[in-house]
Amino acid sequence: MSSVSSMATVILVTGGSRSGKSDYARLRGEALEGARAFVATCPVVDEETAERIRRHQQERSPDVWDTIEEPVKLKEVILGADNYSVVLVDCLTLWINNLLHEAYMSGDAVSEDYVVSRANELLEACSTHHGTVIFVTNEVGWGIVPENALARQYRDLVGRCNRVLSAAAHEVVLVAAGIPLVLKKREP
Amino acid sequence: MSSVSSMATVILVTGGSRSGKSDYARLRGEALEGARAFVATCPVVDEETAERIRRHQQERSPDVWDTIEEPVKLKEVILGADNYSVVLVDCLTLWINNLLHEAYMSGDAVSEDYVVSRANELLEACSTHHGTVIFVTNEVGWGIVPENALARQYRDLVGRCNRVLSAAAHEVVLVAAGIPLVLKKREP
Amino acid sequence: MSSVSSMATVILVTGGSRSGKSDYARLRGEALEGARAFVATCPVVDEETAERIRRHQQERSPDVWDTIEEPVKLKEVILGADNYSVVLVDCLTLWINNLLHEAYMSGDAVSEDYVVSRANELLEACSTHHGTVIFVTNEVGWGIVPENALARQYRDLVGRCNRVLSAAAHEVVLVAAGIPLVLKKREP
Repeated sequence: MSSVSSMATVILVTGGSRSGKSDYARLRGEALEGARAFVATCPVVDEETAERIRRHQQERSPDVWDTIEEPVKLKEVILGADNYSVVLVDCLTLWINNLLHEAYMSGDAVSEDYVVSRANELLEACSTHHGTVIFVTNEVGWGIVPENALARQYRDLVGRCNRVLSAAAHEVVLVAAGIPLVLKKREP
Repeated sequence: MSSVSSMATVILVTGGSRSGKSDYARLRGEALEGARAFVATCPVVDEETAERIRRHQQERSPDVWDTIEEPVKLKEVILGADNYSVVLVDCLTLWINNLLHEAYMSGDAVSEDYVVSRANELLEACSTHHGTVIFVTNEVGWGIVPENALARQYRDLVGRCNRVLSAAAHEVVLVAAGIPLVLKKREP
Repeated sequence: MSSVSSMATVILVTGGSRSGKSDYARLRGEALEGARAFVATCPVVDEETAERIRRHQQERSPDVWDTIEEPVKLKEVILGADNYSVVLVDCLTLWINNLLHEAYMSGDAVSEDYVVSRANELLEACSTHHGTVIFVTNEVGWGIVPENALARQYRDLVGRCNRVLSAAAHEVVLVAAGIPLVLKKREP
């Protein structure tokens, strides 16, 4: 990995569902100068998802954000985002869901090591970027152990991915009830 | 809404199930002077709930708290609570549950906008109160996405309601393992 | 209970699943001098569990930690751990699970009072220990109410146990995305 000085400022925003993570991340991005890319990892699979996407899109002015839809190839998007000062990826949990889906379709299993290596690829892509990359993720492991084996695996993978990003991030923010709690902050 | 100076001090206490939220909120109320009202939003629907209510009641001295049971009409209770210096509403999550139940019984759907407008009504009622209004709520969105569509909607609505209250509250406290973590505090 | 001065330093480490709690607790223990015991409360009930145990074991050098496997009798283990300066119990949630299982097998019910008394026994055992006892536990109540009655009881019992330990602990640390957040700290 490149030295820290050449790396994009990486911000990880995490929190429960509907905690205000996405709004917070968007406002952080809008407080920065320059062109901004919103990377949506969410494939439209049902009407509920479509409605959620519509609502989020209405909150983002097209004058302020360009939207890039990419469910899986996040590394490539970040590597190709030289024109943008701010890249906001929303969100990593859906990305992991999409990795699982892709693997399932091709008959492959997804290991923790695989997710770790994919997460590290994202950080390597960030290390070549000149601006700020903001990742939104979810806390998914604060309930009881799910009965469903796939759900258990999913929360394991999300927890692992969050820790990889968090360890390298310049800033980690936990959002609860709309209020940011800075867990970690170091100078870029 | 009235100016902040005429508004009751609003405290939002949130946290996971059995985190000590209710105990913390009760102690905050008991640390204040004057008459105190405990507003129970919990309709007794089963023996498990009844037992939980009994246990909570035993912890509240009737010399210290008047209990008002009201599953739905919280705005009206707050508007009529002029005789009390402290109003403790426990809890908003059950209130939302009751709103959903009421709507279901009358064949209506409950939108996020509806919950936001009901939450804003609570804040408007608080703006006419002279004392302190403490709301207890729950964090419900830190697990995996529920398979049940109603559960998904419920956690969306709770998350939204919490953010409306939190944005206006003077103080927001997250309780974990019995320990309060102040997320936000401004002078009344 | 003995006076605080004769009590082991008690550290409670909590957080969601895969948040980095165990790693953090292990590093805390390794930062202390003297012999170290790792108390595994996890009975090997299935391959998924076995795999998780193997992974955790690989992270613990046998030169640095002695492993003691004990699913239920934690008080006895702590009382007999005079040879160790550091006792790390991982984790209380599995211990409560094992208490529930034991009671179920003998046809008994497990009440909150029972768990509170068992948790207090752990603290009493700590009060006779000369070193540091680190307990790892889980946050399990931040999701929606489980449909399963046993799961509801389990999260109630875990919440209650966490609060008993937390109230007495010298230090309580919440770990999220691998980052420790100190909720409470007092001098030993």
